[in-house]
Amino acid sequence: MPAEDPGRVPVFDDVRAAAGRLAGRARRTPLLAGTPLDERTGGRILLKLETLQHLGSFKFRGAYNRLSQLDDAERRGGVVAFSSGNHAQGVAAAARLLGMPATIVMPSDAPQVKLRNTRALGAEIIAYDRLRESREEIAARLARERGAVLVPSFDDPDVIAGQGTVGIEIVEQAAEAGAALDEVVACTSGGGLVAGIALAVEALSPGTRVCTAEPAGHDDHRRSLASGRRERNAPGTRSICDALLAPEPGKLTFEINRRRLAGGYAVDDDEVRAAIAYAARTLKLVVEPGGAVALAAVLAGKVDVGGRTVAVVLSGGNVDDGLLREVLAA
Amino acid sequence: MPAEDPGRVPVFDDVRAAAGRLAGRARRTPLLAGTPLDERTGGRILLKLETLQHLGSFKFRGAYNRLSQLDDAERRGGVVAFSSGNHAQGVAAAARLLGMPATIVMPSDAPQVKLRNTRALGAEIIAYDRLRESREEIAARLARERGAVLVPSFDDPDVIAGQGTVGIEIVEQAAEAGAALDEVVACTSGGGLVAGIALAVEALSPGTRVCTAEPAGHDDHRRSLASGRRERNAPGTRSICDALLAPEPGKLTFEINRRRLAGGYAVDDDEVRAAIAYAARTLKLVVEPGGAVALAAVLAGKVDVGGRTVAVVLSGGNVDDGLLREVLAA
Repeated sequence: MPAEDPGRVPVFDDVRAAAGRLAGRARRTPLLAGTPLDERTGGRILLKLETLQHLGSFKFRGAYNRLSQLDDAERRGGVVAFSSGNHAQGVAAAARLLGMPATIVMPSDAPQVKLRNTRALGAEIIAYDRLRESREEIAARLARERGAVLVPSFDDPDVIAGQGTVGIEIVEQAAEAGAALDEVVACTSGGGLVAGIALAVEALSPGTRVCTAEPAGHDDHRRSLASGRRERNAPGTRSICDALLAPEPGKLTFEINRRRLAGGYAVDDDEVRAAIAYAARTLKLVVEPGGAVALAAVLAGKVDVGGRTVAVVLSGGNVDDGLLREVLAA
Repeated sequence: MPAEDPGRVPVFDDVRAAAGRLAGRARRTPLLAGTPLDERTGGRILLKLETLQHLGSFKFRGAYNRLSQLDDAERRGGVVAFSSGNHAQGVAAAARLLGMPATIVMPSDAPQVKLRNTRALGAEIIAYDRLRESREEIAARLARERGAVLVPSFDDPDVIAGQGTVGIEIVEQAAEAGAALDEVVACTSGGGLVAGIALAVEALSPGTRVCTAEPAGHDDHRRSLASGRRERNAPGTRSICDALLAPEPGKLTFEINRRRLAGGYAVDDDEVRAAIAYAARTLKLVVEPGGAVALAAVLAGKVDVGGRTVAVVLSGGNVDDGLLREVLAA
């Protein structure tokens, strides 16, 4: 179990191997340059559009990289995962591609769009009460009962390596655009995406800083990077960023991140709402709350952008209609 | 004046030259493949994301191609254009890049987002009543009085050539994706975009059909292509597609289109609303009504897609918040 034993720590070679497995499967999403953000911030902002990844978030990358390495016997047993929604969809889609049954443990208050899409991908959904039940225990029991493989959403070397392909693409696409990359800011929950990006950036663009962006109150990475040890968020803290509610950094991901990340940013719900509205109105992109925190940090002036080149990951777009409408009414 | 004399008819060499002028100025927008549209339609749909072009529509291409060819004396006199909004923004942005004053004649009921953006680009806006005044007369008078160049929104060889760069990119990007292109469907008003695309496709992918998509009641191209002569729309016909309300095909554009287009599709307002909602919910893209008609034709089952590869242009994303919210509430 991850909490006791971080297991194998992935390295850049794992990320490169993941890129090979994902070629032709995951989308090489655009890195958008030259938007009105440049004039607004005085810097050069490159937007990595993982909102346009299959299933509307980067999560398909890690899930497919993990599942595609299972052997035939493991595939027959199927997979179990727990997730607020984007990892659920990623695992369900990868399992369908590979012909495996998938069972996903999801909070009963997950966005409808994520519940609906996961079900539409053929996965069985087990709902639980996010504030009263342990998804880890439910998922572990299901995996035992069904002889299935449990696929963690971040604390897994193959999942981290898969997410790291986002970092390879950012470095490659920035170079294609003739940009010298000063910083990458990624939305962070358990830390799998940012850990994978950090491995890629360390290998391919070592002078580039990698930073986290988190919701205020769930800024465990920011505080953990400052203190040097894994800090927990206060239980029960709420945020509109349903995808970014992990209680603390992963053990394995923090093993990677504590040595490689330059720091973190925190944004409140209003700043996230403003970023979602800006994305829709000005960038013509639909971004979910958890996918907008890095952009929110830039728009709120928290990232030192002036005269620098900063890549900002828009990590997902699975927002419920109601919230998007509400944000556009403000 | 276009109505009396179509003037020089552009050819593919003009489109290629425009691509050279636009390199590094216009964005080479993504051609998105492998979306859920494939499973839904049974075909292979390639989406050309001109929603992500500068100013949120393809119009910057034609405007910049036209204005960048003016000499110093002409540049000092500035430009005048009339437009419901996207051409306005394209001309205003190109004029600003080239250091020219711009005056734009816009309907007083144009979407607020388009009025606001055009003003923010430094253009002077002259409002008129779309149902009672002639924008052509107002613009011609202003151009005379100010010694300015009038830039038509479609019936101009350089404007058509600029829009045609969309077609070059579609053919190139489809080839990069290993797709043999059966058909291109483009949103159509005066016919400049589709004419430019037709010139490019005829030269680079001659076996590919090019078709128009229009709002019902404003399907003058569909009817004109069938009859072989320019048909007018009934005056006063309404549509939510504010960008697609030209009364008839352009004289110059129809000179190109009547020989090269395979036909046209018409969609009603409800089909357009459904396409806007689908784009936001499933594709994570903000599309305006006039930019969604080609997608609407596909979603409504009007395009023969099964087993074929069809490129669909999402031509613009400048929708008012209110309409987007309304569509997401349905």
